[in-house]
Amino acid sequence: MNEQFSKKAEAWSARFSEPVSDLVKRYTASVFFDKRLAMFDIQGSLAHAEMLAAQGIISEADRAEIERGMAQIKSEIEAGSFEWLLDLEDVHLNIEKRLTELVGDAGKRLHTGRSRNDQVATDIRLYVRAAIDDVIALLNTLRGALTDLAERHHDTILPGFTHLQVAQPITFGHHMLAYVEMFGRDCERMRDARRRVNRLPLGAAALAGTTFPIDRLRVANKLGFEDVCHNSLDAVSDRDFAIEFTAAASLIMMHISRMSEELVMWISPRIGFIDIADRFCTGSSIMPQKKNPDVPELARGKTGRVYGHLTALLTLMKGQPLAYNKDNQEDKEPLFDTVDTVLDTLRIFTDMATGITVNAGNMRAAALQGYATATDLADYLVKKGLPFRDAHEAVAHAVRACDSARCDLSEMSLETLRTFSPLIGEDVFAVLTLEGSVAARDHVGGTAPNQVRKAIERVRGQLKD
Amino acid sequence: MNEQFSKKAEAWSARFSEPVSDLVKRYTASVFFDKRLAMFDIQGSLAHAEMLAAQGIISEADRAEIERGMAQIKSEIEAGSFEWLLDLEDVHLNIEKRLTELVGDAGKRLHTGRSRNDQVATDIRLYVRAAIDDVIALLNTLRGALTDLAERHHDTILPGFTHLQVAQPITFGHHMLAYVEMFGRDCERMRDARRRVNRLPLGAAALAGTTFPIDRLRVANKLGFEDVCHNSLDAVSDRDFAIEFTAAASLIMMHISRMSEELVMWISPRIGFIDIADRFCTGSSIMPQKKNPDVPELARGKTGRVYGHLTALLTLMKGQPLAYNKDNQEDKEPLFDTVDTVLDTLRIFTDMATGITVNAGNMRAAALQGYATATDLADYLVKKGLPFRDAHEAVAHAVRACDSARCDLSEMSLETLRTFSPLIGEDVFAVLTLEGSVAARDHVGGTAPNQVRKAIERVRGQLKD
Amino acid sequence: MNEQFSKKAEAWSARFSEPVSDLVKRYTASVFFDKRLAMFDIQGSLAHAEMLAAQGIISEADRAEIERGMAQIKSEIEAGSFEWLLDLEDVHLNIEKRLTELVGDAGKRLHTGRSRNDQVATDIRLYVRAAIDDVIALLNTLRGALTDLAERHHDTILPGFTHLQVAQPITFGHHMLAYVEMFGRDCERMRDARRRVNRLPLGAAALAGTTFPIDRLRVANKLGFEDVCHNSLDAVSDRDFAIEFTAAASLIMMHISRMSEELVMWISPRIGFIDIADRFCTGSSIMPQKKNPDVPELARGKTGRVYGHLTALLTLMKGQPLAYNKDNQEDKEPLFDTVDTVLDTLRIFTDMATGITVNAGNMRAAALQGYATATDLADYLVKKGLPFRDAHEAVAHAVRACDSARCDLSEMSLETLRTFSPLIGEDVFAVLTLEGSVAARDHVGGTAPNQVRKAIERVRGQLKD
Amino acid sequence: MNEQFSKKAEAWSARFSEPVSDLVKRYTASVFFDKRLAMFDIQGSLAHAEMLAAQGIISEADRAEIERGMAQIKSEIEAGSFEWLLDLEDVHLNIEKRLTELVGDAGKRLHTGRSRNDQVATDIRLYVRAAIDDVIALLNTLRGALTDLAERHHDTILPGFTHLQVAQPITFGHHMLAYVEMFGRDCERMRDARRRVNRLPLGAAALAGTTFPIDRLRVANKLGFEDVCHNSLDAVSDRDFAIEFTAAASLIMMHISRMSEELVMWISPRIGFIDIADRFCTGSSIMPQKKNPDVPELARGKTGRVYGHLTALLTLMKGQPLAYNKDNQEDKEPLFDTVDTVLDTLRIFTDMATGITVNAGNMRAAALQGYATATDLADYLVKKGLPFRDAHEAVAHAVRACDSARCDLSEMSLETLRTFSPLIGEDVFAVLTLEGSVAARDHVGGTAPNQVRKAIERVRGQLKD
Repeated sequence: MNEQFSKKAEAWSARFSEPVSDLVKRYTASVFFDKRLAMFDIQGSLAHAEMLAAQGIISEADRAEIERGMAQIKSEIEAGSFEWLLDLEDVHLNIEKRLTELVGDAGKRLHTGRSRNDQVATDIRLYVRAAIDDVIALLNTLRGALTDLAERHHDTILPGFTHLQVAQPITFGHHMLAYVEMFGRDCERMRDARRRVNRLPLGAAALAGTTFPIDRLRVANKLGFEDVCHNSLDAVSDRDFAIEFTAAASLIMMHISRMSEELVMWISPRIGFIDIADRFCTGSSIMPQKKNPDVPELARGKTGRVYGHLTALLTLMKGQPLAYNKDNQEDKEPLFDTVDTVLDTLRIFTDMATGITVNAGNMRAAALQGYATATDLADYLVKKGLPFRDAHEAVAHAVRACDSARCDLSEMSLETLRTFSPLIGEDVFAVLTLEGSVAARDHVGGTAPNQVRKAIERVRGQLKD
Repeated sequence: MNEQFSKKAEAWSARFSEPVSDLVKRYTASVFFDKRLAMFDIQGSLAHAEMLAAQGIISEADRAEIERGMAQIKSEIEAGSFEWLLDLEDVHLNIEKRLTELVGDAGKRLHTGRSRNDQVATDIRLYVRAAIDDVIALLNTLRGALTDLAERHHDTILPGFTHLQVAQPITFGHHMLAYVEMFGRDCERMRDARRRVNRLPLGAAALAGTTFPIDRLRVANKLGFEDVCHNSLDAVSDRDFAIEFTAAASLIMMHISRMSEELVMWISPRIGFIDIADRFCTGSSIMPQKKNPDVPELARGKTGRVYGHLTALLTLMKGQPLAYNKDNQEDKEPLFDTVDTVLDTLRIFTDMATGITVNAGNMRAAALQGYATATDLADYLVKKGLPFRDAHEAVAHAVRACDSARCDLSEMSLETLRTFSPLIGEDVFAVLTLEGSVAARDHVGGTAPNQVRKAIERVRGQLKD
Repeated sequence: MNEQFSKKAEAWSARFSEPVSDLVKRYTASVFFDKRLAMFDIQGSLAHAEMLAAQGIISEADRAEIERGMAQIKSEIEAGSFEWLLDLEDVHLNIEKRLTELVGDAGKRLHTGRSRNDQVATDIRLYVRAAIDDVIALLNTLRGALTDLAERHHDTILPGFTHLQVAQPITFGHHMLAYVEMFGRDCERMRDARRRVNRLPLGAAALAGTTFPIDRLRVANKLGFEDVCHNSLDAVSDRDFAIEFTAAASLIMMHISRMSEELVMWISPRIGFIDIADRFCTGSSIMPQKKNPDVPELARGKTGRVYGHLTALLTLMKGQPLAYNKDNQEDKEPLFDTVDTVLDTLRIFTDMATGITVNAGNMRAAALQGYATATDLADYLVKKGLPFRDAHEAVAHAVRACDSARCDLSEMSLETLRTFSPLIGEDVFAVLTLEGSVAARDHVGGTAPNQVRKAIERVRGQLKD
Repeated sequence: MNEQFSKKAEAWSARFSEPVSDLVKRYTASVFFDKRLAMFDIQGSLAHAEMLAAQGIISEADRAEIERGMAQIKSEIEAGSFEWLLDLEDVHLNIEKRLTELVGDAGKRLHTGRSRNDQVATDIRLYVRAAIDDVIALLNTLRGALTDLAERHHDTILPGFTHLQVAQPITFGHHMLAYVEMFGRDCERMRDARRRVNRLPLGAAALAGTTFPIDRLRVANKLGFEDVCHNSLDAVSDRDFAIEFTAAASLIMMHISRMSEELVMWISPRIGFIDIADRFCTGSSIMPQKKNPDVPELARGKTGRVYGHLTALLTLMKGQPLAYNKDNQEDKEPLFDTVDTVLDTLRIFTDMATGITVNAGNMRAAALQGYATATDLADYLVKKGLPFRDAHEAVAHAVRACDSARCDLSEMSLETLRTFSPLIGEDVFAVLTLEGSVAARDHVGGTAPNQVRKAIERVRGQLKD
């Protein structure tokens, strides 16, 4: 999913003119995508070298040489002058080869007591750990932006829908906080996944451990891992963490897809609940009047992309015998693209949240359509003593009458209302207003503006932590 | 995925003779599969009624009547005499209808301050919570059985494979413990998911909360929930917990598929590493000599089933606008079948683990093939001062020579060995034995029998908790 | 996905009290779901017996006995008196066992020259072939119903949306015909898949063919297969046809999900384009005023179910070595449930199509909102000589002016319009009407009522075939 | 999945330093991956311009200018000198902008009567059509290579496995031909999909058709399309063809995964049935003796990648309302990567097929293990008059006796054999040899060398077409 494929595209333009040996090299090499791991590879190697020296497996002089060489390589990579060679297969061999050029025998000693199998497992865990930290940070930024929006509209009324039918009036702030809850659970899942990512496979070597007197806890400590992987066979073949991360990312994208669906509908002209800033939309190549909500639509589409990566990783691991098999090289591209997609999407949604303008008038008009306060009338009757099921029945008749008369419940006369139940009194009209309806749902989790404010405080408390 | 479908099958046998109205009824009803939730539905209703009475929303007399009715319904269901009616759509209406038959108006008051949307969300969370507890218990039983097997074979040597090629000798105990680690992570994930399952949606009512002065924390406490869902819109539409559970279950099945793959190969005659008890195998309808490992093969196949349910649930939720939509009724069958599949599979694997017989002779013979101790020779040379990359190179030459001479490294004379490196001395032969090789990998996570014993103690400590 | 699971549910209610040997039996048995194949199994056996007799492998007397026994079994199954035994594992052994009870040695001779591997492959192909025929028939019935609806509304105007923004006016008939095209492609795919289903595996025996002088073409001919499977190893392990069928079914459900999404939006009160008959909707347990579009919502949800089955089957076959493995028993439940889901959904949608009422007034009002004829103005300018890109630009300015003035393009004065381009003349107003706009798109595939009528004729021609 | 992502990687290295407007631009732009469509875009534009001129919608002079400009652009792209600008979003606008620079107003007239919606749909269909032709060609080349291998080993005997247990002897040629059948079905599916790809969407314009008097059949003819899309709404939103192609590609990869699984097992030392040429393998960074079958392992892993793309595309289209939505831009990367993966894999497998060396001795030794001819003995008894089920029983006893005596069936004395059935005579030993066993399965689809040769002829006939 990068230059490899540009190259591929060129290659194919000449219709299979590439010699097979080159094809094999390209097919099996990973350097064009795993070079993204370079800094993590160096970090891991330095910790390994430090331990080797501390344990007397290599000399202090060798360690110093390795550090010198790695510092040089780092700056070459940052400067863009490092030469990545397809012939050296992957990021690990590219770096080791250059190290040996730079520091000679010390470089050849770096691989003592480890193998590419545990090395790559370490690199990828360092990468995923950093990605999780970025994802959590962005989720919380987005939660903050949505909470600000919720605060501005803690008492703006719109119809709450179930089945896309008007159900009951709610506040826009309450609606936004539903997403804040979803993204909050996403944070929790990412944090849980992080604990399982944050264990050190290094020391597993090829699959069985090594004959050198290594100190795995020292390396774990150096790299900030909370524990070591406790079985070497498992350590080199475990990709649970990649799948768990991608599953958690799939849930993030699912939430994004739900929000996108709503944004797209809300800016559709028949609904017109909101506008979003022009920079998140595009025009049409043929219809001059169009303003298309490109960003939420694309984000909704990208849900498929991340779901697909989850399928890819689960399929990859199905039925693999222990320990390491080359299949596992295929874990990287779905993982990298998942990280990119989620980070980009979260960033853009955070900014888009600040670019939402609410059309309170359209929201109110919609809430007044569809007998949104019918449940309030039923609850009113229950409070007057009617069993709920009977109250429900009485209101159903009243709604049918309104439907024929083409009026709202609140527009019926007291007299007419009383034909449905003699329990109805003058005080009914207070419960039939939109404001009365939302204010009455005043308990933890309810839509009352009062509760929205409390919920906002609760979220802000979480975000401060 | 139950009687509904038997009925369906019958229906189709007459080629679409069913009237459409019946078809609609059957298409939209859920009672044939959601009746599995009956006991959880009653449990939730009792807690709700208790709170309604405590808050003075219904009378104590009504509460008592509801409890009496529910006790009766419970015993009817347990006795199999409860009549489930398709016309009453789902488990909730079936029970409520019967309750009203039994206790009259009190029954009609039960639904005060709640809706089917939050009721079903509560039931399904109670169900998943119980399922998670069962899954964790079975995972740990399986871990225990595999640990016992590991203990019996803590020093039985077999070849460790990477790429299905002989890599290095390992112990069978170490190999079994790799699965113990995997199933351990599965427990962790289930425990993490449980925390997010264990939050009470009741009180969200249809989507916005209710106008009655309910006490959600009281209900949560009664039902053993750790928290309430903090946003009513989210509470009725959230199915994250079902997806998270199914994703964790997919990882369990992935681990099962890997173990199955190995079991199937290990009892294949050319490998012959193990036998499994006859009751997990079947014969052939045509080949009298066959003993087929049906259980691990089926389990491997069932991986697809659970992956499929994960895809189903993720697809289900993609792009759904808030709050509740009827689509969500489709969450149950994939979830129920996932629970059944995982529980059955874990139970059967636990028993199968006790039915594994190890053929240590075949394992040893295989370990002696393929120069399994080549890495040991390289490490030996490193310890004598050669840089690792140079040692690797020297051993590669030695292996090539063995290949021509059709002998193992340990069968070469010291003289011949010294042609590859003058650093080689008499002490080399100790490192070239299988026992020497495994014993040398004596650090946390390594394959040495000594470490296997330590790892077993560690697992047993976890299982005791 | 049937009684097996009810039984399972009961079993679990006692928390794992089932002895393991029973669990193994139930885990590996398939009779509770594969008994659905009974009639196909008998059909296949009769053709096999007929061939065995014709080839002199069994006697005519044996064949007659087998036929007599099978006739008896058929009527027992139809009468519901056939006793299915879990102990006999699957539909095949249940039937063969009963046959031997009924006709003695002749029954024991039936399995000559075949194996369960090729027998089950034959049964399942007969089943899928019949399912495909049902699916195609229902797809065409649905296409017919949508075409009738299209005819009634060949000139009813509604806004065509892209990005859920008003794009250009279209006719409702044209919109319905878009789905007729989709379901038409679904028919094609089913027909293509049928050709690959319709090949006989019988004769492959366990995996290698048989030593008896069988005549596979005779059996193929008898059973209506177009060809035989040309490689015995492939014949017993091939499940491509199940996957291909499920992939085609996934596309059907995807189309259904798109139509459902539109139906749900169209009956949402802010849009109000259509109503659907009450029998496809339900009310709410708490909100007396609700009419929820349950059927399209459920259908949209069931998309996930079928996608999930596709994932299950693809996962199932990944990495399976030749030839038959027990994993393959897991092909049936996803397949059966896919067939049930698609058939039910198509039937219910056909009926629902006849229950759609169009609110032409709401459609027209919506089409007048959003400058739907802006492209027409651009085209008008191009015809007057302006390059398209310049015309597009001029119209964009006009739209912006309308937006400020809060009027439609057709409501501007000629004078004002001419400020955007001097090429505009009096004839512009004809192109700015909704009727003018749709009528002008009068080419193959265009939305003009004239083209809609032609397209209806074309579809009716296809349906007659 | 190309430079976009390298750029992304760089961008992120500075931890979100990118301004949001740039992020939006990058998030919504497609030029970095859709430039792959450039030649198809030009081809489509030229056909469109030719028709516009023929219909008098643009002048001949304009058409000539457009052709001149496009020729120039083509050579710029081929030379690598064309400057792709992110600011111009996609391949279409990049090319049109450059065209207008080169030829002025004629360039601005090119977009007359079309929209980006139908333009991109046309481009992508031209691309998929070409991809299908490449895939079919490579599938047939691979089939040819496998057929050659089958011919060389039409009578080389190995054990046929079911459940990875020795079942019956088969020939290696027969085994290879099983894959030839699978890849043959893949060709069929690709050809079927091609018919549905090969329909022209151009003329649908944005969604409703155009007001210009276009001639769609002329364009279809010019571009080699077999038909036009018959409904404009469907034409711009249909992505069935991408999904159908990816589903067919998933089946190809599934077959590849099965073959890979077998190759990996066959070169595992305990099996040792084959070797594959060194260039498809790699060594180990730590174990000098290893030769790892990287190519088949990676190919097996890449199965997940293509399955994942199928999930992505199905998810993408779920629930999308008509007509075009921006979500659809996400169709390209999964599609492109599917094409690359399948083409690369097929090429490399074709070459690998020629690099397979068979170890007939190991195959034979394995076939002699496991009573592979037990079915032959049962068939022998049936031919002597025993009902099949009784013969099966008798042989089961014989096998049990061999198991105790640790000998093969063919090594028992006639006397001993007769203890299991008096029907056994001297002629039994001919049927108990491997050669006798395979030769006896001499009917269409059977494993007899005679049938293998016939099957090879049949395939060669197909490949000639």
